[in-house]
Amino acid sequence: MKYLIGIDLGGTNVVCGLLNTDLGVLKQVKIPTERHLGYQNVLHRIAEMIKDLLVGEGIKTEDVAAVGAGIPGLINPDEGISIFAGNMNWRNMPVAQDLSDLIHLPVFIDNDVRMITLGEALKGAGRGFRHVLGITLGTGMAGSIVQDGQLFYGGGYMAGEIGHLRVDGESFPCGCGLKGCLETVASATGIARLAKERIQQGASSVLSELAPSVEGITSALVSEAYDRGDSVAVEVMNYVGRMLGRGLISAIHLISPDVIVIGGGAAHAGERLLKPMREELQAGLIAPYWERLQIRLSELSDDAGLVGSASFAYRRLNK
Amino acid sequence: MKYLIGIDLGGTNVVCGLLNTDLGVLKQVKIPTERHLGYQNVLHRIAEMIKDLLVGEGIKTEDVAAVGAGIPGLINPDEGISIFAGNMNWRNMPVAQDLSDLIHLPVFIDNDVRMITLGEALKGAGRGFRHVLGITLGTGMAGSIVQDGQLFYGGGYMAGEIGHLRVDGESFPCGCGLKGCLETVASATGIARLAKERIQQGASSVLSELAPSVEGITSALVSEAYDRGDSVAVEVMNYVGRMLGRGLISAIHLISPDVIVIGGGAAHAGERLLKPMREELQAGLIAPYWERLQIRLSELSDDAGLVGSASFAYRRLNK
Repeated sequence: MKYLIGIDLGGTNVVCGLLNTDLGVLKQVKIPTERHLGYQNVLHRIAEMIKDLLVGEGIKTEDVAAVGAGIPGLINPDEGISIFAGNMNWRNMPVAQDLSDLIHLPVFIDNDVRMITLGEALKGAGRGFRHVLGITLGTGMAGSIVQDGQLFYGGGYMAGEIGHLRVDGESFPCGCGLKGCLETVASATGIARLAKERIQQGASSVLSELAPSVEGITSALVSEAYDRGDSVAVEVMNYVGRMLGRGLISAIHLISPDVIVIGGGAAHAGERLLKPMREELQAGLIAPYWERLQIRLSELSDDAGLVGSASFAYRRLNK
Repeated sequence: MKYLIGIDLGGTNVVCGLLNTDLGVLKQVKIPTERHLGYQNVLHRIAEMIKDLLVGEGIKTEDVAAVGAGIPGLINPDEGISIFAGNMNWRNMPVAQDLSDLIHLPVFIDNDVRMITLGEALKGAGRGFRHVLGITLGTGMAGSIVQDGQLFYGGGYMAGEIGHLRVDGESFPCGCGLKGCLETVASATGIARLAKERIQQGASSVLSELAPSVEGITSALVSEAYDRGDSVAVEVMNYVGRMLGRGLISAIHLISPDVIVIGGGAAHAGERLLKPMREELQAGLIAPYWERLQIRLSELSDDAGLVGSASFAYRRLNK
């Protein structure tokens, strides 16, 4: 039992990793999810991916202890069920059992952001801290809490939806059905949308040259425009950073993390976003919270979900 | 070892209880704290209170397993130290050791609101729920999280400061040094202050008759005025309830409690406050959070802190 398999399933790609039991990533492969093919086909693709990886490395199935998979949406990790995954169009799917039947290995699943945060807490930017709040700023915004190496689930396994705090003055419809949620602002999607809106309202911006069309504006291009001193980009980054800080003030006073680890696509904006965020935090946190708080960008990139899910599976196996 | 002692130390009164190891409160006594007499005298008062209680009930010291005490402010429960208690004027006081030296029993301490929430979670309104968020609306507003019977501490033992979320449009100075904190609105003090301000701004209210002076307005009187249909009282309760709901939306999406237990003086406002709070929650929570959430008023009153601290001490003793 020398190996573990970690899976990070996203709406676009599946990442599969071979790890040793010390959670070192020995090999990583990535393929498109092809979610339009449906549940059974996605599971078969993952099963083939695992088999190919093992064959390619000359590893026997019996030398693998367990498979862990991070899956988007609402998960029941105790029963191994995907309760609801909007972007996969899954409802009450027994993923752990079904995948286990295909690969003849024990499979354990949990929410993808929880797996990423667990990975960063154990081996990445949260290493050495007892209380870790991980947030990802991607298509949406999600969070996850790890305390003394253990995930905090909350009722119904629903803790961590920090992206659905209200932002005053915002009314953009969120995928959740509400309006003005923090993730409509503090996410890669939010950054791109806010820049597009300002340009559509007539603001002059270098983004009109950088992007093939207004629809083609991305958070990465907003970062590029920011570095050229573009006023739309600077305004958007400052606003998003401040609103992110505003939301985190609630979270920090409530759960008092030692460290906040920020990942996801929009984390590449780095200081452009973190500077206004820190200013908001310093102004809005009671002093001892601000003084002890560490803020870190994620360190493990794609590996975070693999490390987290592999370690999750290994622990559950030995429970 | 048939008995436990629970202490709930407040800035005004100390409550002391004799409990059996099933956490039943057999006897409760209350005396003024006399905090102006200073640390040593307050501890001696508590020690005498415990001795008198045991003598009065004919119980020998050796039949008491442990003493638990809930203390305001920032506590290190692992070392038994009061790190900071603003209203007691204590800093880094080794309360557990000092009290233990006086009564020759093991003493364990923790923050008073955590003890109250633990008591409600084990024996009160949170009984039977896995994830409990307790909040107290008193002089200030504080919260505490109990998960599967265990307190959630956060970094530096500082989790739970839900009273210091920002309220948009508010700028009243908070005791913490910031402005516009939720507890300046959502507390007994906040309800009284907001009513006073409206009257001082010239609003006509039955409160001018009910209270001896504008300064004498209390949250209880605002409730009384509310029941007479007073427009200032109705406006204040609606506003406070909505802002409380707004703050709780952040907390609920982040930690997903099964039940919120509301205690403290302002909880006596009951539905006057809970109705607008629920309306705000229903409008601002993602549907599954709203559908599964239970909201309860505290059930144990003064006993909550005694049950919580006694059970806390009993567990720590057996750790």
